[in-house]
Amino acid sequence: MSDRPFDLLTLGELLLRLSPAGVERLVRGDSFQKQVGGAELNVAVGAALLGLHTGLVTQLPAHDMGKFAKNKVRSYGISDDYFVYDQSSNARLGLYYYEYGAYPRKPKVVYDRKNSSFVYINEDSFPDEMYKATTCFHTTGITLALCENTRKTAIDMIRKFKESGTIISFDVNFRGNLWTGEEAKACIEEILPYVDIFFCSEDTARLTFKKEGTVKEMMKSFTKDYPISIVASTQRIVHSPKSHTFGSVIYDASRDEYYEEEPYHNIDVVDRIGSGDAYIAGALYGLLSSGGDCMKAVQYGNATAALKNTIPGDLPTSDLSEVNTVIREHNDKGPQSEMSR
Amino acid sequence: MSDRPFDLLTLGELLLRLSPAGVERLVRGDSFQKQVGGAELNVAVGAALLGLHTGLVTQLPAHDMGKFAKNKVRSYGISDDYFVYDQSSNARLGLYYYEYGAYPRKPKVVYDRKNSSFVYINEDSFPDEMYKATTCFHTTGITLALCENTRKTAIDMIRKFKESGTIISFDVNFRGNLWTGEEAKACIEEILPYVDIFFCSEDTARLTFKKEGTVKEMMKSFTKDYPISIVASTQRIVHSPKSHTFGSVIYDASRDEYYEEEPYHNIDVVDRIGSGDAYIAGALYGLLSSGGDCMKAVQYGNATAALKNTIPGDLPTSDLSEVNTVIREHNDKGPQSEMSR
Amino acid sequence: MSDRPFDLLTLGELLLRLSPAGVERLVRGDSFQKQVGGAELNVAVGAALLGLHTGLVTQLPAHDMGKFAKNKVRSYGISDDYFVYDQSSNARLGLYYYEYGAYPRKPKVVYDRKNSSFVYINEDSFPDEMYKATTCFHTTGITLALCENTRKTAIDMIRKFKESGTIISFDVNFRGNLWTGEEAKACIEEILPYVDIFFCSEDTARLTFKKEGTVKEMMKSFTKDYPISIVASTQRIVHSPKSHTFGSVIYDASRDEYYEEEPYHNIDVVDRIGSGDAYIAGALYGLLSSGGDCMKAVQYGNATAALKNTIPGDLPTSDLSEVNTVIREHNDKGPQSEMSR
Amino acid sequence: MSDRPFDLLTLGELLLRLSPAGVERLVRGDSFQKQVGGAELNVAVGAALLGLHTGLVTQLPAHDMGKFAKNKVRSYGISDDYFVYDQSSNARLGLYYYEYGAYPRKPKVVYDRKNSSFVYINEDSFPDEMYKATTCFHTTGITLALCENTRKTAIDMIRKFKESGTIISFDVNFRGNLWTGEEAKACIEEILPYVDIFFCSEDTARLTFKKEGTVKEMMKSFTKDYPISIVASTQRIVHSPKSHTFGSVIYDASRDEYYEEEPYHNIDVVDRIGSGDAYIAGALYGLLSSGGDCMKAVQYGNATAALKNTIPGDLPTSDLSEVNTVIREHNDKGPQSEMSR
Amino acid sequence: MSDRPFDLLTLGELLLRLSPAGVERLVRGDSFQKQVGGAELNVAVGAALLGLHTGLVTQLPAHDMGKFAKNKVRSYGISDDYFVYDQSSNARLGLYYYEYGAYPRKPKVVYDRKNSSFVYINEDSFPDEMYKATTCFHTTGITLALCENTRKTAIDMIRKFKESGTIISFDVNFRGNLWTGEEAKACIEEILPYVDIFFCSEDTARLTFKKEGTVKEMMKSFTKDYPISIVASTQRIVHSPKSHTFGSVIYDASRDEYYEEEPYHNIDVVDRIGSGDAYIAGALYGLLSSGGDCMKAVQYGNATAALKNTIPGDLPTSDLSEVNTVIREHNDKGPQSEMSR
Amino acid sequence: MSDRPFDLLTLGELLLRLSPAGVERLVRGDSFQKQVGGAELNVAVGAALLGLHTGLVTQLPAHDMGKFAKNKVRSYGISDDYFVYDQSSNARLGLYYYEYGAYPRKPKVVYDRKNSSFVYINEDSFPDEMYKATTCFHTTGITLALCENTRKTAIDMIRKFKESGTIISFDVNFRGNLWTGEEAKACIEEILPYVDIFFCSEDTARLTFKKEGTVKEMMKSFTKDYPISIVASTQRIVHSPKSHTFGSVIYDASRDEYYEEEPYHNIDVVDRIGSGDAYIAGALYGLLSSGGDCMKAVQYGNATAALKNTIPGDLPTSDLSEVNTVIREHNDKGPQSEMSR
Repeated sequence: MSDRPFDLLTLGELLLRLSPAGVERLVRGDSFQKQVGGAELNVAVGAALLGLHTGLVTQLPAHDMGKFAKNKVRSYGISDDYFVYDQSSNARLGLYYYEYGAYPRKPKVVYDRKNSSFVYINEDSFPDEMYKATTCFHTTGITLALCENTRKTAIDMIRKFKESGTIISFDVNFRGNLWTGEEAKACIEEILPYVDIFFCSEDTARLTFKKEGTVKEMMKSFTKDYPISIVASTQRIVHSPKSHTFGSVIYDASRDEYYEEEPYHNIDVVDRIGSGDAYIAGALYGLLSSGGDCMKAVQYGNATAALKNTIPGDLPTSDLSEVNTVIREHNDKGPQSEMSR
Repeated sequence: MSDRPFDLLTLGELLLRLSPAGVERLVRGDSFQKQVGGAELNVAVGAALLGLHTGLVTQLPAHDMGKFAKNKVRSYGISDDYFVYDQSSNARLGLYYYEYGAYPRKPKVVYDRKNSSFVYINEDSFPDEMYKATTCFHTTGITLALCENTRKTAIDMIRKFKESGTIISFDVNFRGNLWTGEEAKACIEEILPYVDIFFCSEDTARLTFKKEGTVKEMMKSFTKDYPISIVASTQRIVHSPKSHTFGSVIYDASRDEYYEEEPYHNIDVVDRIGSGDAYIAGALYGLLSSGGDCMKAVQYGNATAALKNTIPGDLPTSDLSEVNTVIREHNDKGPQSEMSR
Repeated sequence: MSDRPFDLLTLGELLLRLSPAGVERLVRGDSFQKQVGGAELNVAVGAALLGLHTGLVTQLPAHDMGKFAKNKVRSYGISDDYFVYDQSSNARLGLYYYEYGAYPRKPKVVYDRKNSSFVYINEDSFPDEMYKATTCFHTTGITLALCENTRKTAIDMIRKFKESGTIISFDVNFRGNLWTGEEAKACIEEILPYVDIFFCSEDTARLTFKKEGTVKEMMKSFTKDYPISIVASTQRIVHSPKSHTFGSVIYDASRDEYYEEEPYHNIDVVDRIGSGDAYIAGALYGLLSSGGDCMKAVQYGNATAALKNTIPGDLPTSDLSEVNTVIREHNDKGPQSEMSR
Repeated sequence: MSDRPFDLLTLGELLLRLSPAGVERLVRGDSFQKQVGGAELNVAVGAALLGLHTGLVTQLPAHDMGKFAKNKVRSYGISDDYFVYDQSSNARLGLYYYEYGAYPRKPKVVYDRKNSSFVYINEDSFPDEMYKATTCFHTTGITLALCENTRKTAIDMIRKFKESGTIISFDVNFRGNLWTGEEAKACIEEILPYVDIFFCSEDTARLTFKKEGTVKEMMKSFTKDYPISIVASTQRIVHSPKSHTFGSVIYDASRDEYYEEEPYHNIDVVDRIGSGDAYIAGALYGLLSSGGDCMKAVQYGNATAALKNTIPGDLPTSDLSEVNTVIREHNDKGPQSEMSR
Repeated sequence: MSDRPFDLLTLGELLLRLSPAGVERLVRGDSFQKQVGGAELNVAVGAALLGLHTGLVTQLPAHDMGKFAKNKVRSYGISDDYFVYDQSSNARLGLYYYEYGAYPRKPKVVYDRKNSSFVYINEDSFPDEMYKATTCFHTTGITLALCENTRKTAIDMIRKFKESGTIISFDVNFRGNLWTGEEAKACIEEILPYVDIFFCSEDTARLTFKKEGTVKEMMKSFTKDYPISIVASTQRIVHSPKSHTFGSVIYDASRDEYYEEEPYHNIDVVDRIGSGDAYIAGALYGLLSSGGDCMKAVQYGNATAALKNTIPGDLPTSDLSEVNTVIREHNDKGPQSEMSR
Repeated sequence: MSDRPFDLLTLGELLLRLSPAGVERLVRGDSFQKQVGGAELNVAVGAALLGLHTGLVTQLPAHDMGKFAKNKVRSYGISDDYFVYDQSSNARLGLYYYEYGAYPRKPKVVYDRKNSSFVYINEDSFPDEMYKATTCFHTTGITLALCENTRKTAIDMIRKFKESGTIISFDVNFRGNLWTGEEAKACIEEILPYVDIFFCSEDTARLTFKKEGTVKEMMKSFTKDYPISIVASTQRIVHSPKSHTFGSVIYDASRDEYYEEEPYHNIDVVDRIGSGDAYIAGALYGLLSSGGDCMKAVQYGNATAALKNTIPGDLPTSDLSEVNTVIREHNDKGPQSEMSR
């Protein structure tokens, strides 16, 4: 795409995820699945699977669990060039416990991410060249919310990337357990002047940013207040923890147009964690690989997110050929084979 | 609640349950899940999780499998004060094999519980103080049906508990493979004069007790024939082995009133075994913790049963905070988060 | 049935199947389930479980993986009398990789069956008595399609079995990755003069054999062109990878009658591989055990296929008593127990 | 060998074995390995793997666990022609719990085999032809010890097989938890007049049969008291639960000669259960396949037993080619490859 | 023993332990075993299994992982009466990652226990009655080393327990990654005036406490400097990560006598973590159950520790009957059965 | 080291390895561990873990199993820049079945690698720059032996790499199942003129190359016949499949000196496959990172090989810090901690 070595760099924390297998519960059982995740990691992985050259900017412990995380994400094809290792004896990998749901029992998350090596990330650990190394930079409200230091680091990095001509992508990803709506609004409004591609759900627009009107009206209003080019909003209908419908709408401010398609109905949800991040991965792939085709962003975003829901763990596993197949079948109204042979 | 050390004691057999994992079958495969269950155990565990102080009155082998059973149930928070250990060389833990179903294949149970240590239970093994140690005593038709000795022991214990002012709870739990309807009717009518809280399904009322009319009419008629205070009846609609709808109705004879609520629809059934017992656990918790509030019994019974359906094994795992959350969400018609974070 | 030692012999390749457990993917994960399958094997196993004396005619490697395959299929009750072992150092067991699907992700098959020991099968390895040893002989289009040698061997065997008075059963089982529709049509038309029982789906009749009209018209037209006695055609509706509806119609040329029943709706699909073969197993059992009762063939075919969908792996596991139970429940419109105790 | 259809039939109980995997314990853990075993079954399986045509004479439940047992043993290549199914509602598969040891903790067995379907075995269930169907018949002291009925049945069968010219093989296999030494001595002395091949350990000869002298003297003395042709005695040195040394000596009365070889030293013991039975399988193979070559019996007995110690479960898995390889390497004093490629 | 409700209370942190199964490594693999441990917990569990009434004094998170820990330790039979739950949103369960070794690769531990709920433990959370509730109180240098707050709490509790006439047991358990030898020496010397039973290894006596002479001389010297009644010191010889020899010596100051026995040689080490704590459990059982018999302490300490080495996880699983069997066999020089039947 | 982008490129086949877990056997069981390996891959991985920048030159299928292999090896830190994907419908990943041994049962390998995508590797698929991209190039006799095409490709590549000034490393790795000793000798003598670093075992020198004398004499003689700089030879003593002793000697022709150290005795062997390749990885690391220090090569070779023996699978997992620790402990004769904390 451009001549920069990376298409996409994301900044964020890499977490260890511990979940009982299948239908087992946190409060009992003798084993955990050992996985990794993290909103910005998930985006980098999803986009790498689709063919972008991506990397994560992060800090993680130098000990074996940091090495585990590195090995795992390398297997998904993203770069660890900007992994900084925390050599201190207190170095820790933030983690969370996750339990699958079954109606009427909801999925459950218990976080243990305080004081992880990531929250001590230091801008000075990264070379100046990094800021000119990528076409697009992405981070989320989670990184802003974690602590004073990550907030400052993220905002500084956004400014530096922007200055070097990098496209800035931002996902609000509001988490009530990390900060209040007021804090989120104040902080994010500080960075919106730098943002080119903005991901914000209808609920968040309404409840956190105090927007009013339809989802399309709210999306457009962001582009009036700030020099945002593209706003994307996903819609998820939860029929049960095992069945969702997923779609999205994207607004292109320069053309003043909305893009959407038929949602994916009754997805067989295996693991819904990371499907929003997979959407962003697909949407950024659509935009970056096409020079800004929002319809392609909708299609790749929706398909990548729908597929992610069928995969255990935070990370997507679908490469370009798989996503292309699903998009083609989604649009094909004729008879279809029931199996890929 | 009262000043007795236990809120609830139940009398019954503790069984080993052996099931192939997931979709595997009894007739093949190389491993079994190793769990414990038993109607009265399930009730004691469910009520303990909700906060009652409960215990099981039982006899089990002194060898390692008896120790396994003890360790397992202790982990669920119930007391083993009234566990009597069978030291004989013939001591055995009754067991059953269980296979999950998938339409059109039904779940399957194969019993191997004859001659277990439980059927040699002896009243004299238990101290007289036991009869004054609990607010409520519960047993089921299974214990009556197992053999002459368990029947006699159960009836004697019911009498002694009743004499000491204990609330008597009884669940018909009719099993055609243990006795005939006629035997069940004759035996249970012998103990109904002692029963305060009576659990009986519509089918059993009609087929075994030869009642006629609507389910509510049948429930009420029991209270006319016997000095029963409360009659509860559950309703389950089986859409497939993996999807049920569950609700119940409770009749309070003193107020001559029926209590019910909207059933839980399309429960994601993982394991339906023990969900009826979980209902009783919830209903008894509702009654005992409130001094007899039947609406609370309906709500806690339904929610506890619905939750149990989503849990593998006979035993529930939901504590008071989880059940409260599900009740609140069941009654809340507004938008809901799809996950507990 | 007859005085021949076998009721059914089938000719075909025995494959190793490697699948990630549950929802895991081929491109990651650390283990495979180790199973065996193969269209004609599946038929022989399914019919053996129902009580026929069946065997597979095949060639497989003499090394440990050939022994594994032998041990595994013996456990399902079929004979290995006609297993020929390839002692060469190149001997290999053909295999395929299989991944389960979840909407919108389809199940996926990757084959690695070229140059397996089976494709070097040699008629001379089998004794002449074999051709008089069975009431019915069955093979499929897959064996015809694998290579020149298996095609020639299969056709020769069909001729020899036919000459000895054996009933010939044939399933088109068209696979576009093995040959073209034209090749299939030409080859199969060469053997149709020998076929008594013909299994062909509506799609294949239309697309491969260029038939026109309704499915019933097409079925009948085969019996006009060739001396086929019975034509069977299955219908599957795929609601999602986890929910299918399955039914069939059978045409009896001598009576000029069609047989069908209410399909099995919304089957809880665990693994759809081999369900078509299970249908044939059930249908052949119905026909061979009754002297040609097509209604029995429909009932046993549908029930066996419906049940197979609920079982992991290619091979069915349902014996006669299980299939009889499902048939009885399928036809019983009254209230049913939800569990087999 | 002879023209009888079987080379070896054994009479005995088929047990379900439940063991925690690896180093886990009976008193905790969430799963069991699901295996089958039984002294006489183990012998029949071991000999079948070496190429004899063998079968087990037994009775087992008609329900799914009986089917499981049948499927499992069929996969090892033995016949189920003389499996009688107990259709009663009390039918049960005897079972035992097994836990591996690690010094200073010994392996542990907990039996639950009382009242199994086997103990109700009835001679009348078996056809008269059975008594002429095999070259050799084998049973053990366990079958004699289980109960009055199995003792009577075993003795009657021994007499009938003997009358038809069958070689009678018998293993004392003394188990102090089933009967006393006195009972064993009295009962076994009743059948020794019929026995041709007698397996008896040094300890049992001394403690149960009150023999005196060296092991060789004791072995010989049996052949003086009874018309026994061959006496075999194994020697096991237990260095730790994970390291044994195993050897044997065989006495041929007709030649008045002893046969032995260098023991297998420091065997890597994975599971020692069934290794004595594997010895008998190898020894009987040696004798029956050679017309009575005792040196071959020693070699195949020792090698098969040594190999069995390295295999989890009761059942051996080593076929003739594997046993031949081990015998060759055991006798080969030159350099050896460390791997079979 | 006394009329206090508990025989032993211990104060310490309860940790989650995450280990790859078997020979897998931290830096790769997809699952963790989910266990609990902690030096003082291990002691309480080991002593409870032997029959003492024990409990742990600790603080842990109120969320699901705290409940998991509670459920798990309850299954081992210890009391949770003095579990205080941290309701804060930062509540966390300290944890450590553990990898088994194989020569020349050593076992490895990575800690992540900073800022756990335990380090915020508050004396005021515990009732005054606690200090009179137990015959013996035990804690270790780990609790002293964790942080200022746990050190102060531990020392205060030691004083209060001592004042109420409780026997004080203390294990140095020096961990170089928690504090320096100088810090340890200074702090522990502050509490030695209160200690009755003192556990200290030879290395620690020499390197940390700067003692000189033989191990026996060093042990005795502690009793000269402080009013310590009993000093115990274990000796472990590591042949490889899978084979250790373990023994101990105990000094009784009042009798001025040393007690020891033949060590356990070449223990089959499965998991050496917690074996030192198991020693203490056994030794305290020996002392408390006998009124101070040091030889019994040596025997139960050594046997319990030797057995623990054969058990995966931190926690012992051996009850009194198992330990008694091992002691008897350890002292029995005659022939032994190789298996417990 | 040099300014070339890679330190080491290796040429070879990447195989799928399928092994039963632990002590299970190929001929039974229901699962396989899914791993990758290959002599030259193992070398590249081992050296990458130690810090070299390495890559594999290979061809593999474009389908999901090729992607699996790519993902897996990427997780070990080597480059896939020179992975060529076979898009043909016949593309296959060569594979082998592996079974662990236990004395007297040896480990066993069954190959199924014929006609894999690798054997169709085409020099033209690789860019000319590749030949100048690495400091060292390594391949083995396996690649030469596979088929005419791989032999020609390997020899051509060796020539081209040599011409560009690359250090050529070669391991004989003789496999009797791929070619005869005569074929091997003739072929390898053709490439020895290009080889700088030569790995050859004592047995192969004697049996294949017909060398005579001591191992040191034979090693030296190679350097007289050819312009080889360094010859390395490993020595393995197999005590049992679970215990080996491993050491090596390296000869430096320019200095005419031999380097060796005390072997690693009684290694706890978990999986010996790939330990010879790990030796080469360590030795090449030692040489390349030091500019040819043969003592460093011996130390890193031995330690890396010893460690690999303790790791399941073909691939090593030990990074520089782990290997350094083992080297330090191997040389340290003082007391050592038994655990890494």
